[in-house]
Amino acid sequence: MNGNQFGRLFQMTTYGESHGEAMGVTVSGCPAGLELSEDDIQMELDRRKPGQSMITTSRGEPDAVKINSGIQDGYTTGTPIGMVIENKDARSGKYEPYVTAPRPSHGDFTYSAKFGTRNWGGGGRSSARETVNWVAAGAIAKKILDTQDIEVLAHVNQIDDIRAPPVSFEEIREHAEDNEIRCAHPPTADKMREKIDTFQKEGESIGGAIYFEARGVPRGLGAPRFDSFPARLGQAMFSVPATTGVEYGLGQEAREWTGSDRNENWEFDADGDPQPVGNTHAGLQGGITTGEPIYGEATWHAPTSIPKKQSTVDWETGEEKEIQVVGRHDPVLPPRAVPVVESMLSLTILDFLLLGGRLNPDRLDGNPGEYDTEYHPSSPRN
Amino acid sequence: MNGNQFGRLFQMTTYGESHGEAMGVTVSGCPAGLELSEDDIQMELDRRKPGQSMITTSRGEPDAVKINSGIQDGYTTGTPIGMVIENKDARSGKYEPYVTAPRPSHGDFTYSAKFGTRNWGGGGRSSARETVNWVAAGAIAKKILDTQDIEVLAHVNQIDDIRAPPVSFEEIREHAEDNEIRCAHPPTADKMREKIDTFQKEGESIGGAIYFEARGVPRGLGAPRFDSFPARLGQAMFSVPATTGVEYGLGQEAREWTGSDRNENWEFDADGDPQPVGNTHAGLQGGITTGEPIYGEATWHAPTSIPKKQSTVDWETGEEKEIQVVGRHDPVLPPRAVPVVESMLSLTILDFLLLGGRLNPDRLDGNPGEYDTEYHPSSPRN
Amino acid sequence: MNGNQFGRLFQMTTYGESHGEAMGVTVSGCPAGLELSEDDIQMELDRRKPGQSMITTSRGEPDAVKINSGIQDGYTTGTPIGMVIENKDARSGKYEPYVTAPRPSHGDFTYSAKFGTRNWGGGGRSSARETVNWVAAGAIAKKILDTQDIEVLAHVNQIDDIRAPPVSFEEIREHAEDNEIRCAHPPTADKMREKIDTFQKEGESIGGAIYFEARGVPRGLGAPRFDSFPARLGQAMFSVPATTGVEYGLGQEAREWTGSDRNENWEFDADGDPQPVGNTHAGLQGGITTGEPIYGEATWHAPTSIPKKQSTVDWETGEEKEIQVVGRHDPVLPPRAVPVVESMLSLTILDFLLLGGRLNPDRLDGNPGEYDTEYHPSSPRN
Amino acid sequence: MNGNQFGRLFQMTTYGESHGEAMGVTVSGCPAGLELSEDDIQMELDRRKPGQSMITTSRGEPDAVKINSGIQDGYTTGTPIGMVIENKDARSGKYEPYVTAPRPSHGDFTYSAKFGTRNWGGGGRSSARETVNWVAAGAIAKKILDTQDIEVLAHVNQIDDIRAPPVSFEEIREHAEDNEIRCAHPPTADKMREKIDTFQKEGESIGGAIYFEARGVPRGLGAPRFDSFPARLGQAMFSVPATTGVEYGLGQEAREWTGSDRNENWEFDADGDPQPVGNTHAGLQGGITTGEPIYGEATWHAPTSIPKKQSTVDWETGEEKEIQVVGRHDPVLPPRAVPVVESMLSLTILDFLLLGGRLNPDRLDGNPGEYDTEYHPSSPRN
Repeated sequence: MNGNQFGRLFQMTTYGESHGEAMGVTVSGCPAGLELSEDDIQMELDRRKPGQSMITTSRGEPDAVKINSGIQDGYTTGTPIGMVIENKDARSGKYEPYVTAPRPSHGDFTYSAKFGTRNWGGGGRSSARETVNWVAAGAIAKKILDTQDIEVLAHVNQIDDIRAPPVSFEEIREHAEDNEIRCAHPPTADKMREKIDTFQKEGESIGGAIYFEARGVPRGLGAPRFDSFPARLGQAMFSVPATTGVEYGLGQEAREWTGSDRNENWEFDADGDPQPVGNTHAGLQGGITTGEPIYGEATWHAPTSIPKKQSTVDWETGEEKEIQVVGRHDPVLPPRAVPVVESMLSLTILDFLLLGGRLNPDRLDGNPGEYDTEYHPSSPRN
Repeated sequence: MNGNQFGRLFQMTTYGESHGEAMGVTVSGCPAGLELSEDDIQMELDRRKPGQSMITTSRGEPDAVKINSGIQDGYTTGTPIGMVIENKDARSGKYEPYVTAPRPSHGDFTYSAKFGTRNWGGGGRSSARETVNWVAAGAIAKKILDTQDIEVLAHVNQIDDIRAPPVSFEEIREHAEDNEIRCAHPPTADKMREKIDTFQKEGESIGGAIYFEARGVPRGLGAPRFDSFPARLGQAMFSVPATTGVEYGLGQEAREWTGSDRNENWEFDADGDPQPVGNTHAGLQGGITTGEPIYGEATWHAPTSIPKKQSTVDWETGEEKEIQVVGRHDPVLPPRAVPVVESMLSLTILDFLLLGGRLNPDRLDGNPGEYDTEYHPSSPRN
Repeated sequence: MNGNQFGRLFQMTTYGESHGEAMGVTVSGCPAGLELSEDDIQMELDRRKPGQSMITTSRGEPDAVKINSGIQDGYTTGTPIGMVIENKDARSGKYEPYVTAPRPSHGDFTYSAKFGTRNWGGGGRSSARETVNWVAAGAIAKKILDTQDIEVLAHVNQIDDIRAPPVSFEEIREHAEDNEIRCAHPPTADKMREKIDTFQKEGESIGGAIYFEARGVPRGLGAPRFDSFPARLGQAMFSVPATTGVEYGLGQEAREWTGSDRNENWEFDADGDPQPVGNTHAGLQGGITTGEPIYGEATWHAPTSIPKKQSTVDWETGEEKEIQVVGRHDPVLPPRAVPVVESMLSLTILDFLLLGGRLNPDRLDGNPGEYDTEYHPSSPRN
Repeated sequence: MNGNQFGRLFQMTTYGESHGEAMGVTVSGCPAGLELSEDDIQMELDRRKPGQSMITTSRGEPDAVKINSGIQDGYTTGTPIGMVIENKDARSGKYEPYVTAPRPSHGDFTYSAKFGTRNWGGGGRSSARETVNWVAAGAIAKKILDTQDIEVLAHVNQIDDIRAPPVSFEEIREHAEDNEIRCAHPPTADKMREKIDTFQKEGESIGGAIYFEARGVPRGLGAPRFDSFPARLGQAMFSVPATTGVEYGLGQEAREWTGSDRNENWEFDADGDPQPVGNTHAGLQGGITTGEPIYGEATWHAPTSIPKKQSTVDWETGEEKEIQVVGRHDPVLPPRAVPVVESMLSLTILDFLLLGGRLNPDRLDGNPGEYDTEYHPSSPRN
């Protein structure tokens, strides 16, 4: 209810402001027996890190994660995993002029309206810096999904009006990290890059979209209606800052498809199991997973922090003001949002996997190393 | 977690299958002092009822609601409101051929995969009949919102490729209920109706969309990030069966808008309060309400139940089968989904209103009639 | 948060007032495949029913349960089970004098203080009649526990200063239902009965206690700290009206035991598994179950409804009043609370069993009868 | 569900093991505008700190808290408060012999049974060291309650068979911190101290009890039945390690009180408000607060870590072993549990205060210092 928790059985609880002391995330409900080190998490944090290229903010954050609990001899123990990521390069001074004069289309006004105050440095709690916590928790989720042969990928498929052609899951795996746009279609990535450069030179920002897909998700996950897979994933995706649209499968296009075009007959697969002849249903029927790939798209509006001159009002002095947001900001959001989307999708899947009792714990390594404290209870005694 | 609950402080818990004994919904957390009768709820149920016109299922359900608790002398008491709506016109026999042969793109396969069994009559628990519960709970939410000068409306703005031009809130209020399509632009409604007729004659179904809007929602509601207003509304909207896309404000279009076009400067309103110069932000900044109207769109795919011949497989007999879904079904979903969307939006707003401590109880009538048991405690005693 | 829900994965949501239309309970999260009929529930409701004997209220309620959903061909389907129990013998008129004049030590004042109004007939929502819902839900929990070889029993072990000697689990099973006191030690039951008669003749009521025990609970259940087994059972037990104390194992006596007396060494059992040499720990160590029997006691204060003259004040008229509670009431609570305690303990255990992934679904019968819709998904597909 | 969260609107989420890197607690839902520094929290942590006297463990922990978020210019902002307390004096080596040989009546066996592994150093996650997190969160709750004129106190009223006579709230406030036993009756404290010394010399430990009381809690708090005040406080109290009994008001004694003795007539107070003539009901009627003081007692069993020789079995080697728990441990728990009990009671009250909408935010100081970002929204706009 307080907005800083996601998940039920596999749950993250977060804290932190853009220019505060540190970001922090507690992962509750992580199964025991997963080999886990700070390196596993760092790897994902580095994908999201600022300062990766010309098109990301130049803020110099090492984003070094420290694990405070939940690990014994290199393996998870089933108890909460506390992680802290210190903020090292906060420069709040630049934000002083906006303390009582909200930046256009930021969360400044609404946070103040909600709380009567706010952390104003760097956007405080409303900053996308918070997503560093999600990627830290998501890194653990991903590692667990990997043991279950579930894979989650995303790539940038649209910037402004430049749209990538459909690419295969394998292409995403291979090419999404090739370029700083994180578009798995290299020629399109080049065009996107040029477009972004143009906008950046004009002191502008621009919107875009991400395609996401998950493979290997077992069938039977999701609890219709309000905890259906699409409902909970919808909550997850709309949690990501600046998201204005979320679609599964055909998405908006479904408006113009007839029932017989969209419906998929059932046939038998090689094992004699029913399988739908196609996957326009995006792995979801009746709000529950079918076992087919889950896929969809989400839209990001242009970053609100732009160097162009804008105007605002100061609710304390009663003055009108010109402002220029001179912070270090991204001209486009999707490239750095890719690991965030993958994290939220991974966290959603893992949580459902645990709720459905479908995690196979034997696939976690489970060897707690030097001291083998493993003790598996036998049947109940009376 | 079990999928049958929505909301935190104002919460509904539902049960029921399409061809079961009865549908039921318990509303927990309803404030005391609201004048409420079965008629208030019936009015909304009648908007959703089957058999309203040629384009809705001919199933003959009176959908009569019975309130079992939570009311004293015509006013709510703050304790749970239990409601029951009996199923009167269930004809399950027709579904027998599909018990082990899933209908294409229905929830038959996934429910069976999840539970190892399912209520198979009329789609059982996966049927849209469940939304009768949501409309019953939503009717209470709407009545409370009304006392707070908050209004929620929706109308059908697209069927197939026929799209209504933008209409004002007032036009929706006036015209949405004029026609059986529930499109607030009458000329477009006529075209939609013709289109639907054509599809219906062909034994087909078709997709569409709904535009929704809420006015009067106070600023400061929503708890970013995972309980932000858009995140929880996203969960609500994707709970509605057959939804494949949800958008706020610019939605998908935001991909092609620059930051300076989308950003809205701040000016002073008549009261000297900051106000944004426009509302492309759809009443939501940083995941929190700004006080401006909240609006968006959702997409429905075509109904999966169609009279056209389709094929399936029987997982018990191992046979391939032809099937024809001969139930009583709608050729298009949005017209009957309008009250459902309004309900989910109303429930979401009211829940946030209570969580934010922003409900003004003095605007509820509160006169419990003959026996005035009202007792308002004074300040704490020591 | 609204007080009418208990449990996480196996959850009940309740409604109803003593003199309202009906009591109702929705059971969410019940596993599929349990053979279940209204008779299974009725059997437990009859144990709690009023009018069983001279020492229980003479209110004539058949307490007939109706199941509205969640069953197909006699087996549960995994979807919510909605149940309704109509109130047939409500006579609210007698309560009119107390509408604005609270009965001594009842919930009249506090409900009015909380809500500004209340259902006043028969105590409304504050009445112990609500526990009929718990026993209905508990009957399902018990039936599931039975398939897992887990048994829950309780009996009255103290009325006033008359205390039963310790009895074995087998004695409780055999004798608790022998007498109307539900004390498993017949000679003590006789003495209790006499004592109660004396108090009843004087227009008085008296307190007492219940001993409860669960056998067969597997080890490893409970999530310390705030969701530990004793913490959640504490919440469950203190939910029962008029409970003033809850103890596990040694309870209060533990104050005077030394560490070496209380501690239990470990030895090997026949299977080579560690087992504690005794069970002063009551099946709970570190907040988690050990597999040994879980047992404890709870205390009930005397019923507050007594025929003796008492005085109160009317907050509307400003008058002082004499009152005599002439309703139909029990002179002592524990005898009818026995099935309630068993229900809350069963619900708590089952919820933990599901959370711990320790329910063996193969022990549920699972044969859904005529139409075998059973479909168990094979391994995930990619 | 994962056991590391308590509270609904005011919620703490914890992590940490006795010998891990650090303990951590995230406080979600703290109202904005409270002046708060690390000193406010340190003050309470110091009351709980080890090494305070001869009767507490000699482990040398500074227990220095670091606040990572949620504060701006010395005031809370309404966003999550992340706190970290590093573990400085962990010496895990001593625990190696018990890794696969459970200590008698500890959580060693059950944690291993639950997770298949465990943090074994110093008891790991099962250690009472976890309560340092609760006291940190409780310090914030206490500070808020103080602004609302709500006061929470506790003292040790029994060690072994030495029981303090009843003392007034004022005596607890004045004397509980006078002596290392935290018994507010100094002559009894002396006797308790002697008794403890005797046991300590024998390598023994002993049980005891704590009396707790809260004054100024407004009436109307609590949501019967499962979220009633006593139900949630029961959960809170049984979360404290080694608690075997919890009682409110008359507690166990209520078994022997008649209805007319226990019931309390209503009279008018000076303001013309109804008030009960006494407080045997302990501020709780029908599960809701009456405004009278809430009080009760809880029982602690003797610490399980004792220097005396005990025996156990090694589930890996199959050997029987003698063990002597040579760690640094307390011979009696209640003295250090006093701040823990006060914290859990404070957290429970504050959570209900927020849920009931009964916190007066104007009593929080709310001056965020140098930069006055305060912005209180006016009425909703349309």
